[in-house]
Amino acid sequence: MTAVTYEHIKTCKQTGARLGKVHTPHGSFDTPAFMPVGTLATVKTMSPDELKEMNANMILSNTYHLWLRPGEDIIQEAGGLHQFMNWDGAILTDSGGFQVFSLSDMRNIKEEGVHFRNHLSGEKLFLSPEKAMTIQNALGSDIMMAFDECPPYPASHDYMKASVERTSRWAERCLNAHERPSEQGLFGIVQGGEYKDLRKQAAEELVSLDFPGYAIGGLSVGEPKDTMNRVLEFTTPLLPADKPRYLMGVGSPDSLIDGAIRGIDMFDCVLPTRIARNGTCMTSNGRLVVRNAKYARDFNPIDENCDCHVCQNYTRAYIRHLIKCNETFGFRLTTYHNLYFLLKLMEQVRAAIAEDRLADFREAFFEQYGFNKQNAKNF
Amino acid sequence: MTAVTYEHIKTCKQTGARLGKVHTPHGSFDTPAFMPVGTLATVKTMSPDELKEMNANMILSNTYHLWLRPGEDIIQEAGGLHQFMNWDGAILTDSGGFQVFSLSDMRNIKEEGVHFRNHLSGEKLFLSPEKAMTIQNALGSDIMMAFDECPPYPASHDYMKASVERTSRWAERCLNAHERPSEQGLFGIVQGGEYKDLRKQAAEELVSLDFPGYAIGGLSVGEPKDTMNRVLEFTTPLLPADKPRYLMGVGSPDSLIDGAIRGIDMFDCVLPTRIARNGTCMTSNGRLVVRNAKYARDFNPIDENCDCHVCQNYTRAYIRHLIKCNETFGFRLTTYHNLYFLLKLMEQVRAAIAEDRLADFREAFFEQYGFNKQNAKNF
Ligand SMILES: [Zn+2]
Ligand SMILES: [Zn+2]
Repeated sequence: MTAVTYEHIKTCKQTGARLGKVHTPHGSFDTPAFMPVGTLATVKTMSPDELKEMNANMILSNTYHLWLRPGEDIIQEAGGLHQFMNWDGAILTDSGGFQVFSLSDMRNIKEEGVHFRNHLSGEKLFLSPEKAMTIQNALGSDIMMAFDECPPYPASHDYMKASVERTSRWAERCLNAHERPSEQGLFGIVQGGEYKDLRKQAAEELVSLDFPGYAIGGLSVGEPKDTMNRVLEFTTPLLPADKPRYLMGVGSPDSLIDGAIRGIDMFDCVLPTRIARNGTCMTSNGRLVVRNAKYARDFNPIDENCDCHVCQNYTRAYIRHLIKCNETFGFRLTTYHNLYFLLKLMEQVRAAIAEDRLADFREAFFEQYGFNKQNAKNF
Repeated sequence: MTAVTYEHIKTCKQTGARLGKVHTPHGSFDTPAFMPVGTLATVKTMSPDELKEMNANMILSNTYHLWLRPGEDIIQEAGGLHQFMNWDGAILTDSGGFQVFSLSDMRNIKEEGVHFRNHLSGEKLFLSPEKAMTIQNALGSDIMMAFDECPPYPASHDYMKASVERTSRWAERCLNAHERPSEQGLFGIVQGGEYKDLRKQAAEELVSLDFPGYAIGGLSVGEPKDTMNRVLEFTTPLLPADKPRYLMGVGSPDSLIDGAIRGIDMFDCVLPTRIARNGTCMTSNGRLVVRNAKYARDFNPIDENCDCHVCQNYTRAYIRHLIKCNETFGFRLTTYHNLYFLLKLMEQVRAAIAEDRLADFREAFFEQYGFNKQNAKNF
């Protein structure tokens, strides 16, 4: 019995988007779903209760960061990550691969794994498929990710081909090293950049290994949006229909909708929480930089169409004041609203799939958000 | 009809401490009471809902800080401070005097008021009794404080006498300038340092002006604890029994108990919230610096005798991890616990007064907290 399963409910007749459910040892959640990111065993500024309140059923946490601080041994001793952070919903952990390639500039990739330096202390470290499994088994996440290489964008076909093949070999080693398959589902990661043949090769190799779910990696790394959509269009059909599909690192409203339309079930991104701490909010009418001077005397909510606790109780003027003064509560309020906004968006996406009108929803949403404007910002 | 009244319930036979209620336009609260400090219209890291949950019925906010940011005009336009910050409990605002004297090193005290420089921008400012009333009237706090001079400790008798007399003249000007006496209660502030004759003179002059409540200022400014207690012993009897008595800037557990024993009804201090952000907690067994390495694998709550939400759900190891990583949620957890601890302490103090056993409670609490140890820390 595998720890994580996908239940398909229906496919949107207008777009092909999938409505489903992912079942995990810590509860089930409806898909397409957005997962808030809790890098260091906390979704920055939020409490687990607040995440529950906004119907976040699954969060992501980072293997690399938890390995360094506090160390996976402490989390294991606490009874696992759920117990350590007091979160009884589902947790997905990444493999650490992305951080190794994005945070460390001193790295040496070998067949056995990657030698690199701790981005905080400079200390020499080594991460391998086996080590990534050991750490994630200790963390006890519901969904684990295979250790992969994330090549920079753009990468040559030659480089990408060698990388994809190594990632497949690493994926098999991950499967072999994974010690708790009945409690934790391990997902493979399809790389291949924008090369159709390499995405196909990667997908076939990984599917042959029969993971309980598949991620698409190496997107949202700087390529244009239409490149991402094109890659999704030829990649998701290569993945089995009875397994969940996870698009890594994507969280702008347009990409969430466009990803769902291309058959994606799960998304994660630091975007909503990161921009919140900069005083930027997502609203039904587009971005709103609440720290701007023009909101100093604006006693409207962040988003008049939002029914979240923040928009029901606090004004732009108050939130602006808090953020200008660097007050934590301001960042709590913008973070809460942004996460609520994206979780609500996914709820609307699911409702639209259920009613075969996701293309119509997309059109209306894009128009109101401002994505149809020239020079539209990406979120 | 005055906006703020005091209802005396009983006096502890063992100590003389008073049990009572203060009634304000935004609700009543039991005394002796501790008021969390929300300097910039937010109790740092906390939400109003959390403050309610821990039974904080009254908070303090700072006139000087709100005058500078966001400006009292914006708060007035929002409908007052309660509405601006979404807090429907009672609010006390200080006069700004303390900040003028503690934050600004360029100041010029004249009979008309104080010329000084903005501690943020260096801009020239002027604060007077009339201006302090105008600002507080705009904020709409339930309890306002008269504009006083807080002389440094120690100050000579000559200096203090001149200062006390000016503060009395300023107090009268405050009463005259106060425009909303039926909605906001204005308290006078008794200064006088450690000089018995000057405390007496200050109290008599202010009591003759008939304020709805009185504060004792100029304590907890660096003097030894027994000096503070001695000053309280000769000052509180000078104040009318039918008005609330507020000891400004005091929040260490021992001083709260010792202040109550000397007839104080209200206290405020940044101590619990400030030390929380440094990873220090108040517990029934004394201070606990949860950021210390020895708690890395300690899966006990901050305080095993505490029934707060934090101690019911989170471990020292987790909180230490968050604070070491500078994660906001860690500061939320320590702040919540520390405020809860002090609010609960005051509840225990009130119960002990009700049962005429506050001296016994003091003895047991001091022993367990460690105040009886040699070289005991002050909180
Ligand atoms: Zn909202
Ligand atoms: Zn507690």
